[in-house]
Amino acid sequence: MSEALAPVVVKEIPPKAADLSAWYTAACLKAELVSYSPVRGCVVLRPYGFGLWENLRTHLDARFKATGHENAYFPLLIPESLLLKEAEHVEGFAPEVAWVTQGGSETLSERLAIRPTSEVIIGTMYAQWIESYRDLPILINQWANVVRWEKATRPFLRTMEFLWQEGHTAHATAEEGRDETLRILELYRDFAENVAAVPVYAGRKSAGERFPGAVETFAIEALMPDGRALQSGTSHDLGQNFARAYDITFVDADQQIKHAYTTSWGVSWRMLGGLIMVHGDDRGLRIPPKMAPIEAVFVPIVRSGDDRAIEVCTTAAQRLRQAGFRVRVDTREEQPGWKYSEWDLRGVPVRIEIGPRDVDAATATLARRDRDKSDKEQRRTVALDSLAEVLPELLSDIQTSLYAQAKAFLESHTYVVQDRAEFFKLCKDRAGMVDIAWCERAECEALVKAETSATTRVLRPLEGANATCVVCGEPAKVRAYFAQSY
Amino acid sequence: MSEALAPVVVKEIPPKAADLSAWYTAACLKAELVSYSPVRGCVVLRPYGFGLWENLRTHLDARFKATGHENAYFPLLIPESLLLKEAEHVEGFAPEVAWVTQGGSETLSERLAIRPTSEVIIGTMYAQWIESYRDLPILINQWANVVRWEKATRPFLRTMEFLWQEGHTAHATAEEGRDETLRILELYRDFAENVAAVPVYAGRKSAGERFPGAVETFAIEALMPDGRALQSGTSHDLGQNFARAYDITFVDADQQIKHAYTTSWGVSWRMLGGLIMVHGDDRGLRIPPKMAPIEAVFVPIVRSGDDRAIEVCTTAAQRLRQAGFRVRVDTREEQPGWKYSEWDLRGVPVRIEIGPRDVDAATATLARRDRDKSDKEQRRTVALDSLAEVLPELLSDIQTSLYAQAKAFLESHTYVVQDRAEFFKLCKDRAGMVDIAWCERAECEALVKAETSATTRVLRPLEGANATCVVCGEPAKVRAYFAQSY
Repeated sequence: MSEALAPVVVKEIPPKAADLSAWYTAACLKAELVSYSPVRGCVVLRPYGFGLWENLRTHLDARFKATGHENAYFPLLIPESLLLKEAEHVEGFAPEVAWVTQGGSETLSERLAIRPTSEVIIGTMYAQWIESYRDLPILINQWANVVRWEKATRPFLRTMEFLWQEGHTAHATAEEGRDETLRILELYRDFAENVAAVPVYAGRKSAGERFPGAVETFAIEALMPDGRALQSGTSHDLGQNFARAYDITFVDADQQIKHAYTTSWGVSWRMLGGLIMVHGDDRGLRIPPKMAPIEAVFVPIVRSGDDRAIEVCTTAAQRLRQAGFRVRVDTREEQPGWKYSEWDLRGVPVRIEIGPRDVDAATATLARRDRDKSDKEQRRTVALDSLAEVLPELLSDIQTSLYAQAKAFLESHTYVVQDRAEFFKLCKDRAGMVDIAWCERAECEALVKAETSATTRVLRPLEGANATCVVCGEPAKVRAYFAQSY
Repeated sequence: MSEALAPVVVKEIPPKAADLSAWYTAACLKAELVSYSPVRGCVVLRPYGFGLWENLRTHLDARFKATGHENAYFPLLIPESLLLKEAEHVEGFAPEVAWVTQGGSETLSERLAIRPTSEVIIGTMYAQWIESYRDLPILINQWANVVRWEKATRPFLRTMEFLWQEGHTAHATAEEGRDETLRILELYRDFAENVAAVPVYAGRKSAGERFPGAVETFAIEALMPDGRALQSGTSHDLGQNFARAYDITFVDADQQIKHAYTTSWGVSWRMLGGLIMVHGDDRGLRIPPKMAPIEAVFVPIVRSGDDRAIEVCTTAAQRLRQAGFRVRVDTREEQPGWKYSEWDLRGVPVRIEIGPRDVDAATATLARRDRDKSDKEQRRTVALDSLAEVLPELLSDIQTSLYAQAKAFLESHTYVVQDRAEFFKLCKDRAGMVDIAWCERAECEALVKAETSATTRVLRPLEGANATCVVCGEPAKVRAYFAQSY
């Protein structure tokens, strides 16, 4: 067992460009975001990964509350008879449901579904709670775990159980329902771009990509380095479909009994998978500062028994913590170089190195994770007592630069195409977001999917008149981004 | 349907003293903390109830993090074979497990348990993560839902699914494990008394009341108004039992392979049930300010078309919100008296009334929920611009006074007894906490339970020598609180 006490080797991950999938899995595991578990399809979110999730939750939750939403919690288990009430919905989710059939030693007379999503149980409760137009709108969000029976496992991207938030609202008019759907779409876009630093295209989905039971689905779509799109958040206008199925009615001001208009919307830990793939490099993760569990890590450098740096780091870290920064001091026995690699792998935005000479000069050397080591400006030395002023600027600069890099990638991998052959080639080659005038016909979308594996990601209004569909030549109705997707 | 538009009637709840159980259920439902759901044994935590839970979570989470714990998330589903590894544990939980046997259209070859608690899955992961003594301690907490198959349903106290936190730690020595167990016990006591304002007795449980698989269980026990104890938090020293069952080993500094020492500890939403029962009165809830989703509610009084109070309240509320207070303005159309009753029912600590005369005089009238209406000091008028100074003192005073009332009740219902007949009578009568010198024998405890339904709640060291057990006359080993319990 002496290996366990030998010097720890630097954790290696394969180069990102060669095989994104291998890089991704290695980065998630070795940065200790997740572990595989003995439960098929399920991963463990380790403390560092949970730190990412907590920051997502804190930022989104504040935005939800600022727009009048409240949190609540609904049951995990849903009786089968309830699930069956909305036909499209149950058809869409039935293949993915995990069923409880036994409780203790008792065999249940009715199976209970573990929620794959909560429209059904929440709709049932809204039907009880809502009586009059004065009870509307109801604006509720839930942070919860859901289960969808999946064969494959990819951390954050595809797991049987995952964490998410699901908003469910009820309104008196179709217009208010649609406004809510779009308000949340914009909230998601703002969060993705300004917190996760992941640029997205936001828009309406095609009928084929719609949520089962929705009148209209909207989504934000990010572009991964392998040219695949990642749907990162969805907002559904459910119209009166669920209100009819679950009998959500209210007495309006005009004394008429009407069905409410409902919406639902969700972001899951999948958003973290997108953030990891978009920003990471060959050294590992690069976490945008606003999402970073650790914004800056101190590495004290001990030379020839001179360990004064440890105390200097500890004191400086304490001061920064009191000023609201998320910092850590790495006092382990390993060599500084090994620590640098480990914190690079884990994507901490700023490393603060302090050695004996820094102690004498009251300085600290800052290394920023967003720049390459070859970049002369990657490291700089500052006065120790200026850290609390220097750090916010540096973190803000890193946040901006990661977003700018990702934005440049998205823009340079978005292809506005008018030629059919070029369109098919780009879709097949997984070139990125392929932007065409499109007819919006399901048959046309099916053809593209069969030939190239690409589907529409989001649609937006057509500008100008008389355009024809790049795929089939029929009159175009919208502009559409096509891409292969996760 | 015209009833729905008729003036809303005041929600009534039965008197608390006559039938605590009826009062409790009515208070929970009518204050909109919870709703019953169509899922047997499961309740919905509505936004106001979730606000209580969020405050519990915020306070406890800060305490966990301040003592070095990190959050993580482990799978909901546990393969049956894993569950079977720790014999006592599985025996204790098997009757309460909900089993998943089908996924989509597939019948599973191995049943999956919905976690009734997570020692098993977390222990399995710790076995993978821990190699050397340098990896210890591991201090992880999880906020999660768990399911225990229950027939009865009482909001917060007994539900099939509930929300809780479960801490799971691993240590290199027995002493560190025990220290952790006791550190958490003290943390729970501090939270219960200083945040939930619920006085408790903290101590060790008897062998019969121990967690299945634990070496020693510690708990905090509160006393409800009906004389029953409510176990409100538990902290388990698991010794090496789980480490042996799940193979959690490490190489120690002396190069020997050893089993780790683990602990687990949890507080659930049951704590909210205790808080509600302890503090409530015939008018409804009385929520301690530190736990209150709404610390103060403004009720603007509109008279003869003079609605200036609405704007004054809105402006004042905005200022208080910016200063960090949790406040709301009730601008609904109902009469002030109806609103007073409703906010009394919901237990908001302070009501701020502002009418036309207050607007003229730039004053506000504060009514405190902890005092009876007959109390001359229940209401007082203050200058409007002094609210931000007056409110913190008032809230702090209410917090203190609720705790003092509950503490007085606990003390006056704790009986130090030396006579066997008196002991049996007090236990049977559900008089409160009955404190005796006790032999610590299982047979003795079983006898008391059979005769009176009371069990030991917590034990503490015996002071002095040569005491004999009040029940059986054998030599006493500890002092014990006996009570009937929830």
